[in-house]
Amino acid sequence: MRDRRFYDVHGPHPLAVLVKATGARLVQGPPDQCITDVASLGAAGPEDATFAINKRALASAGHTRAGLCFCPQSLVPDVAACGAHGIAVSDNPQAAFARAALLLVAPKKLDTAGPWVSGDADIADGARIDAAARIGAGVRIGAGTWVGPFATLEPGCAVGRNCRIGAGASIAFSVIGEGVDIRPGAVIGQAGLGVLQTAQGNRPMPHFGIVRIGDDVRIGANTCVDRAVFDETVIGARTQIDNQVQIAHNVRIGEDCVLAGMCGISGGVVIGDRVMMGGRAGVCDHVQVGNDARVGAAAAVMKDIPDGQTWSGNPARPLRQYLREQLILRDLAAKTRNKDEGDD
Amino acid sequence: MRDRRFYDVHGPHPLAVLVKATGARLVQGPPDQCITDVASLGAAGPEDATFAINKRALASAGHTRAGLCFCPQSLVPDVAACGAHGIAVSDNPQAAFARAALLLVAPKKLDTAGPWVSGDADIADGARIDAAARIGAGVRIGAGTWVGPFATLEPGCAVGRNCRIGAGASIAFSVIGEGVDIRPGAVIGQAGLGVLQTAQGNRPMPHFGIVRIGDDVRIGANTCVDRAVFDETVIGARTQIDNQVQIAHNVRIGEDCVLAGMCGISGGVVIGDRVMMGGRAGVCDHVQVGNDARVGAAAAVMKDIPDGQTWSGNPARPLRQYLREQLILRDLAAKTRNKDEGDD
Amino acid sequence: MRDRRFYDVHGPHPLAVLVKATGARLVQGPPDQCITDVASLGAAGPEDATFAINKRALASAGHTRAGLCFCPQSLVPDVAACGAHGIAVSDNPQAAFARAALLLVAPKKLDTAGPWVSGDADIADGARIDAAARIGAGVRIGAGTWVGPFATLEPGCAVGRNCRIGAGASIAFSVIGEGVDIRPGAVIGQAGLGVLQTAQGNRPMPHFGIVRIGDDVRIGANTCVDRAVFDETVIGARTQIDNQVQIAHNVRIGEDCVLAGMCGISGGVVIGDRVMMGGRAGVCDHVQVGNDARVGAAAAVMKDIPDGQTWSGNPARPLRQYLREQLILRDLAAKTRNKDEGDD
Repeated sequence: MRDRRFYDVHGPHPLAVLVKATGARLVQGPPDQCITDVASLGAAGPEDATFAINKRALASAGHTRAGLCFCPQSLVPDVAACGAHGIAVSDNPQAAFARAALLLVAPKKLDTAGPWVSGDADIADGARIDAAARIGAGVRIGAGTWVGPFATLEPGCAVGRNCRIGAGASIAFSVIGEGVDIRPGAVIGQAGLGVLQTAQGNRPMPHFGIVRIGDDVRIGANTCVDRAVFDETVIGARTQIDNQVQIAHNVRIGEDCVLAGMCGISGGVVIGDRVMMGGRAGVCDHVQVGNDARVGAAAAVMKDIPDGQTWSGNPARPLRQYLREQLILRDLAAKTRNKDEGDD
Repeated sequence: MRDRRFYDVHGPHPLAVLVKATGARLVQGPPDQCITDVASLGAAGPEDATFAINKRALASAGHTRAGLCFCPQSLVPDVAACGAHGIAVSDNPQAAFARAALLLVAPKKLDTAGPWVSGDADIADGARIDAAARIGAGVRIGAGTWVGPFATLEPGCAVGRNCRIGAGASIAFSVIGEGVDIRPGAVIGQAGLGVLQTAQGNRPMPHFGIVRIGDDVRIGANTCVDRAVFDETVIGARTQIDNQVQIAHNVRIGEDCVLAGMCGISGGVVIGDRVMMGGRAGVCDHVQVGNDARVGAAAAVMKDIPDGQTWSGNPARPLRQYLREQLILRDLAAKTRNKDEGDD
Repeated sequence: MRDRRFYDVHGPHPLAVLVKATGARLVQGPPDQCITDVASLGAAGPEDATFAINKRALASAGHTRAGLCFCPQSLVPDVAACGAHGIAVSDNPQAAFARAALLLVAPKKLDTAGPWVSGDADIADGARIDAAARIGAGVRIGAGTWVGPFATLEPGCAVGRNCRIGAGASIAFSVIGEGVDIRPGAVIGQAGLGVLQTAQGNRPMPHFGIVRIGDDVRIGANTCVDRAVFDETVIGARTQIDNQVQIAHNVRIGEDCVLAGMCGISGGVVIGDRVMMGGRAGVCDHVQVGNDARVGAAAAVMKDIPDGQTWSGNPARPLRQYLREQLILRDLAAKTRNKDEGDD
């Protein structure tokens, strides 16, 4: 179920209406069955629309109880076997789903004509809201929290006690714990980069999830954390994140991690607890980094890192292997130079 | 001709005045000939001032019809042969030009004492401007466009219909199409990094161009797009750009590209259509990337990439070559390790 | 002595009170000796608290005259030999110091309930402050300086004449020279990433220093410059910094440098004069880069670079060595390919 603090639900709509609106073709399920909401393939229930693009996605989800699943023709038997109630066929199931989704669910937006601090916000005694901050409807702010000038809290955001929201930070679709320190210019909760390739060119994938930030997390200046497509982008308690870090949609970061400046964490990455990442290190989509792992500065992690290991380099590999390779290359170059000079 | 929406023209000034003000020496052209504007070497006409620093710049421009061209003594015959009407000699022609240019053309600025939304702005019915947005003189905003809190639109900017300007975005010197989605904290249209090395140390190169953004482009949070020195930095229709991407002055990006988070595109780079760039990839100054090319995450592109090719690595090379090199290095390291262990 | 423009001093407190509050154990010094302030190990005087974590830190400082130095038990003789007046033992001396420090010194904050422009600010005639800017108590702004909309100047900041503070820039704990150009979204003067690892998990290291920016410096859009832990993060005159550059705490950059977009300068790095850094280059903690050095785009500098040298690659090495290694690897790969193809 979408979090009603952040999303308005425009449905329900019958299967037939949604499928027709998207140009897809209903191949299973009662046309008048009602759909209310959207969800990921694995989490979808009988009132939810979802999509499946290939066997890998189905395998990853394991099963689905979706009321309506958009998929390509070739995938229909598999989707049915996985348990979907309704199935609609489309050459571009993700784009068809996106069109249906926008008929069902709409993200809440700031009332542009409203007062700077919505009368509907719930601000605890002892919270200090700068005279130049902007607070949307339904926002909750705990005691002892400080909100700086030109900070924006979009509708529905919850901020715990004793937090600090820096100047110009933009927070949307977020549930934030206690003692969280968000530095100026951080942007939390935007839709991530999801690209639908259609016959009319690129279109954005709408996002329906949130960001959840644990207690005592630190988010650096101008760092970005995108919300999940359906569920939650999560940052665990006490994780310390430096400036200009990019955390994409659906990332899950554990507790007590340290991410130095300019790290980039791509979509769907899972990072364990107590992980240390050096400056400008990056992790590719859907890679997993184990507990207590360490990643060197400027490393590019393209494969899973087991618990406790230290990796470095581009592409990242275990530190000892990386150092040995660097040494070999240097020795080879030195030999060649000596040979060249001997030839002179 | 400078775009009068963004630049005030203070001229015309006679050749003699401009040349004297810059400490240069007039070696060709009538001293009382009037100069009105500035332009790049190749685009300059009889009323424009420009500069040439070396033969490569002349070769690249092909010809010039400049009313006044600053150049070093050694380049005078070439500049004359290329068609310049007036020629002034300077040891530092770019710095001399910059001084002349600031006598001719001045960028418009926000009226700091004016109302938050200039009475001179043209805002369509159905545009929603947040109560905390700042809109300069001469700005045009289309119907259905949403401008968020703490967003700034500097004088002269044009924003089409159905756009979304996120919280705290700063837009200047920009012409923006329809359906464009600019996320919070993006900075569009600033002068790029241009450094004049003078006897008094570094000085900034003034910028006289704009940014042009096509329909349905997506610009991520905290992404920067600098305006051109003279002409246009261009982002083609439907190109999707992630968070914290840096796009320098004079870049031209085609249509339907996808740039993942933290990509860096240096000055004068030309990127074709449907190019895909992985996260944290970079492209060096003036490099060209062909249509349908793919660039791996964390790659550093230092040479042109032909159409349709996939490159990766630092420095970037064709993917198969890159993978082969990684494999060889790994094998060498493994052999060395075995040998070392055999020696124990 | 803390700069009273930026920090309130809550002390003095006697040694005994501070040591008890932190759970440490006083092993040297009169319990009723008063401590007023905090300082780095080398700079601390008889009224200052500080900490030492290992012999390397002591060696680097050379000596200390600290009134109170927190250290581990094993380091007590060395700390005494270095000249500390008072010594307190703790298993986690940095965390103990941090707790004591917050009893002594507190950073000043914006008065959230105050007017947008503090009546206590000293703004020269001829400075232009946008109607939407936010100026804290004790701020000084020179003539000819332009402050854009949604810019924040936190309490005590000093900005010289003829500066430009872009839209949405956030400036705190900073002393800024003349003719400085700070582009939109820049964040100057925040506490850097300092992580105290405690039994209760990660905690942030408080910061007590400032940022000092020389005349005619240029700071790009969305660039961050963190303040020092104790002393000053320094950017020398006329240094030109591009967009999205990250400059960590305690960095010292010389004069007339050029840092292209997305460079990352880690904590404690020292960069000489006239250094040129290509785009997305990074420098690791405490590394030194000599005068007139050049660093290639995307390089990762992990060792000191001598004056005048050009380095490139990841990890960075002298350019000729880097090029030779790239060539060798390419040749090896080409030979292997030929051999493979010959084997077919």
